[in-house]
Amino acid sequence: MENSLFTANNIWMMICTGLVFIMHLGFSFLEIGLTRQKNTINILFKNMFIICAGLVLYALIGFGLMYPGEFNGVLGFGGLGLRLPENGLTAEYASGGYTYWTDFLFQGMFAATAATIVSGAVAERVKLESFILFTIIYVGLIYPIAGSWQWGGGFLSEMGFYDFAGSTLVHSVGGWAALIAVYLLGPRIGKFSESGKVGAIPGHNLPLATAGVLILWLGWFGFNGGSVLSADPAATSLVLVTTSLAAAAGGISGFLFAYIRYKKYDLTMFLNGILGGLVGITAGADQMGITDSLVIGLLAGVIVVLGVALIDKLKLDDPVGAIAVHLICGIFGTLAVGIFGAKAGWEQFVHQLVGVGLIGLFCCISAFIILFALKKTLGLRVSKEEEVEGLDLHEHGMTAYPDFRLD
Amino acid sequence: MENSLFTANNIWMMICTGLVFIMHLGFSFLEIGLTRQKNTINILFKNMFIICAGLVLYALIGFGLMYPGEFNGVLGFGGLGLRLPENGLTAEYASGGYTYWTDFLFQGMFAATAATIVSGAVAERVKLESFILFTIIYVGLIYPIAGSWQWGGGFLSEMGFYDFAGSTLVHSVGGWAALIAVYLLGPRIGKFSESGKVGAIPGHNLPLATAGVLILWLGWFGFNGGSVLSADPAATSLVLVTTSLAAAAGGISGFLFAYIRYKKYDLTMFLNGILGGLVGITAGADQMGITDSLVIGLLAGVIVVLGVALIDKLKLDDPVGAIAVHLICGIFGTLAVGIFGAKAGWEQFVHQLVGVGLIGLFCCISAFIILFALKKTLGLRVSKEEEVEGLDLHEHGMTAYPDFRLD
Amino acid sequence: MENSLFTANNIWMMICTGLVFIMHLGFSFLEIGLTRQKNTINILFKNMFIICAGLVLYALIGFGLMYPGEFNGVLGFGGLGLRLPENGLTAEYASGGYTYWTDFLFQGMFAATAATIVSGAVAERVKLESFILFTIIYVGLIYPIAGSWQWGGGFLSEMGFYDFAGSTLVHSVGGWAALIAVYLLGPRIGKFSESGKVGAIPGHNLPLATAGVLILWLGWFGFNGGSVLSADPAATSLVLVTTSLAAAAGGISGFLFAYIRYKKYDLTMFLNGILGGLVGITAGADQMGITDSLVIGLLAGVIVVLGVALIDKLKLDDPVGAIAVHLICGIFGTLAVGIFGAKAGWEQFVHQLVGVGLIGLFCCISAFIILFALKKTLGLRVSKEEEVEGLDLHEHGMTAYPDFRLD
Repeated sequence: MENSLFTANNIWMMICTGLVFIMHLGFSFLEIGLTRQKNTINILFKNMFIICAGLVLYALIGFGLMYPGEFNGVLGFGGLGLRLPENGLTAEYASGGYTYWTDFLFQGMFAATAATIVSGAVAERVKLESFILFTIIYVGLIYPIAGSWQWGGGFLSEMGFYDFAGSTLVHSVGGWAALIAVYLLGPRIGKFSESGKVGAIPGHNLPLATAGVLILWLGWFGFNGGSVLSADPAATSLVLVTTSLAAAAGGISGFLFAYIRYKKYDLTMFLNGILGGLVGITAGADQMGITDSLVIGLLAGVIVVLGVALIDKLKLDDPVGAIAVHLICGIFGTLAVGIFGAKAGWEQFVHQLVGVGLIGLFCCISAFIILFALKKTLGLRVSKEEEVEGLDLHEHGMTAYPDFRLD
Repeated sequence: MENSLFTANNIWMMICTGLVFIMHLGFSFLEIGLTRQKNTINILFKNMFIICAGLVLYALIGFGLMYPGEFNGVLGFGGLGLRLPENGLTAEYASGGYTYWTDFLFQGMFAATAATIVSGAVAERVKLESFILFTIIYVGLIYPIAGSWQWGGGFLSEMGFYDFAGSTLVHSVGGWAALIAVYLLGPRIGKFSESGKVGAIPGHNLPLATAGVLILWLGWFGFNGGSVLSADPAATSLVLVTTSLAAAAGGISGFLFAYIRYKKYDLTMFLNGILGGLVGITAGADQMGITDSLVIGLLAGVIVVLGVALIDKLKLDDPVGAIAVHLICGIFGTLAVGIFGAKAGWEQFVHQLVGVGLIGLFCCISAFIILFALKKTLGLRVSKEEEVEGLDLHEHGMTAYPDFRLD
Repeated sequence: MENSLFTANNIWMMICTGLVFIMHLGFSFLEIGLTRQKNTINILFKNMFIICAGLVLYALIGFGLMYPGEFNGVLGFGGLGLRLPENGLTAEYASGGYTYWTDFLFQGMFAATAATIVSGAVAERVKLESFILFTIIYVGLIYPIAGSWQWGGGFLSEMGFYDFAGSTLVHSVGGWAALIAVYLLGPRIGKFSESGKVGAIPGHNLPLATAGVLILWLGWFGFNGGSVLSADPAATSLVLVTTSLAAAAGGISGFLFAYIRYKKYDLTMFLNGILGGLVGITAGADQMGITDSLVIGLLAGVIVVLGVALIDKLKLDDPVGAIAVHLICGIFGTLAVGIFGAKAGWEQFVHQLVGVGLIGLFCCISAFIILFALKKTLGLRVSKEEEVEGLDLHEHGMTAYPDFRLD
């Protein structure tokens, strides 16, 4: 391959890496915006930990585990960490798509995402140290092992499972753990009354939550656009279009469906609809046509509204709607590859179903073991007093807006 | 053309698309920052609607309308929506500048901008449903028809009108509608006292407004830089320089001129000066030299300060200064192409004047018809009670910072 | 060189320019987040002034001064401002890395950074007009002269000093001036009690401060990635990896070391650790391996925590920790080039030490002369009354959140 094309491809992949990185700002804004002020520092601390620890762990363990290279050990274990291969900086490394360093950094940014999804669901009551330990194991081991089954050339990819940019491998991997964690943690004080009524616990900063969604949408240009693994003009530009149209359609159907159900123009359902559309298109963003993308988005917007209601009904407390967005729309998006677009067909649908099931089983079992062990040792949840007074003061000795005043 | 150059060009255009997308975050921050807290959710909702509906409408109608392709029907009507042409993904599509999908998405991001400009001007009193209907018609029909006259290869471009990235075709198209809307809506309660005095209605979050301007400046790298329609090094890099210098000069002259007039260092006039400089350079960002750009910026900074004062004097209530920034500086920037830079000359100036006039006429008439019809049917304005209590509670049943407290 | 490679390189450099630009949003958020609400408008005003004036001054004076071209006058003085050279828009200009316009804009974005560093350190008490004059001289003259000694091909580069992206030439240049300014200004009222105790003066918006750090990290992709001066895949991708790993390691060691010392999970030390890691890797981001980058980050995170304590102990009041982050970690990072990575060695270490010393001497003397002259004429510091009531009301006649209310 000519050097200029290799250079162009690598530029695109580095930009996409930056865009996936800035999704962590989007997630941070979304999570703190939808939760109470007294837990803001705690959420920001968790998010900064996730991105920092995620990158370091992926360098030390995850990358080698997920892409085993020459070695194909048990369960995908093939080696640890970063080891520049002989041709890692040439066009031969990845068909001229990028260098070994770009490969690591792009994949490393993905790895941290799974833990971030959990972070939102367990917000306002999880013990910081337990969450830190969970993150280390889940990002350092579980995510790369699940990833190795498909993107590392493992048995799921050989079977015919398809997950372009990670509706299952990233979003559901995070979503299943979020589900288990929310179940083991129990709801926040005041969320469900004894009579079974759902008490709304409003967040403290909707402008930042909205900004978070716009930043996540932009970040998805890199998340999906970079998953082409080169800058191929036809493929990358199609992916950006399907991604954006699904997001737009998801937002519209989300707010309209919420309006029909609840008779108000609900901004958070608009935002969740956009995110649902984004997660929903991710598994097949390179496979869908324009109409497919719009339909997937429209369905995801409805699914996310129903999903949020379902989680509430199950007495599970997910402060930011992470399970509805990432798990439920992640499953929907993965199955959608067998229903819509170029790969649609009964056989593909079954492959998708098997992939969803196996990854789900692995993640649920792993997350349960880790979190249950933490619950029985360190404890998963802060004290009642700490939860009421806020995690910021107790764990961090500071508040989010200490000098804020009204003029 | 070699594949590597096509790939590089398409990368640039996709990045510029992302940068124009993130301008919607900039506009959102600017608008909520300069308005009152009680209407924040409403403004965010409108902005999310504009970007989502804008993209979907542009896919269904606008793109085909604006770039009629083979068909050249009446008023630019040549076909509806997205239809991948035979060579749409090859270097033959657009002289190797980008693919058909990139073309759609880049132009689609532009389309939504016009409505966003109106959104700021009508903030704090417009009825949500009327604004939604206006947006659908204005973004779906009026913007693409106006665009087709010039960028679609229509009669304005044949006449010799020049508008590089849209001082007129985007900013004035939004600005004229803002002017008509503000006139038909009337001022916010409390803006003008009976004795004729102007009452300042301060915003609620200047840090976000400032962030909005910096994000818009960055977005303009894509807005103007992408309007080169390829990554040609000489042209794109010149455009980024002229754009940035005009913004910088506009900010400086804006704050200095405001200091001379009002004897204080006014941050909002600094911000408006930057935006004025950006809008002012947009029509000729590829035509100007360094001195031209600085002079255009310096003039735009003064014009925007005078423009804000003029709008106030006319008893028009534009909460965010959208008319001064986008309409007045849009006209100035368009005329500047005939005064400064490579195209300067009397004949060009007349072409510019004709273009400004015809687009203005078309936009004013269209906007008036749409908005007047809405006023006589649904009503344009919320009730007095709703305006006083805030649109957030009435239209959305939620507030922007529900859990915010002072520590 | 082929046109496609030139185009790809120039795209990368323009993107990096945009990323360095958006660092000004990062710095703004960080500075206002860590300071009191009553001085927010003032800080934002200063930051907008720095970026606008910085670009204009760099166009008029700085660029010609820093890169003297044909002329090699006294102290690097070789000519003023922007003058497009004959081959400035061809691949011959800079070995095909970028055009003359890109060169100017990328370097211009750097120039403004030095003043921004000072802005944070002098916040909440500096007189606006004095700071404006200081900025004009420091960005217009001092920064380009210091830069010309190394990046302009001057005597430091001939000696063998190495500073890849500016640990010394940008961060320490700003940091030394911050040190002198903080010394001449004196601490904020209430920072040090008469008994010598350090009184914490908490900021008003930690979410924005955290967002600022994430934006700065992203910006560093351009700051360091662009300093490769082409899009060479091997070099740019390595630089992004070393930069990100140092940031991640710095954050982790910063928060852990602060936890050991202060027994709390301190978010601001986490943030400072990340910034310390970023500044620390900057001088050798292209020279380091994976382990080197992690070690440099880990050390920088500790250094920054100790540095903040040291500055406090010296009774210097630096509200945002700019001296610890930019000066101390800047020195550390520059020396690290002689200790770690490809250039490690005693001779290189001495070169680094000499470079740090000479630049430090020049900056301290220059900053002292400018600031001392301002102190004796205009005055450096606002009145006691103004400091207590806030600079926003006194200098700008407005507050940051005028309409903010509690629901």
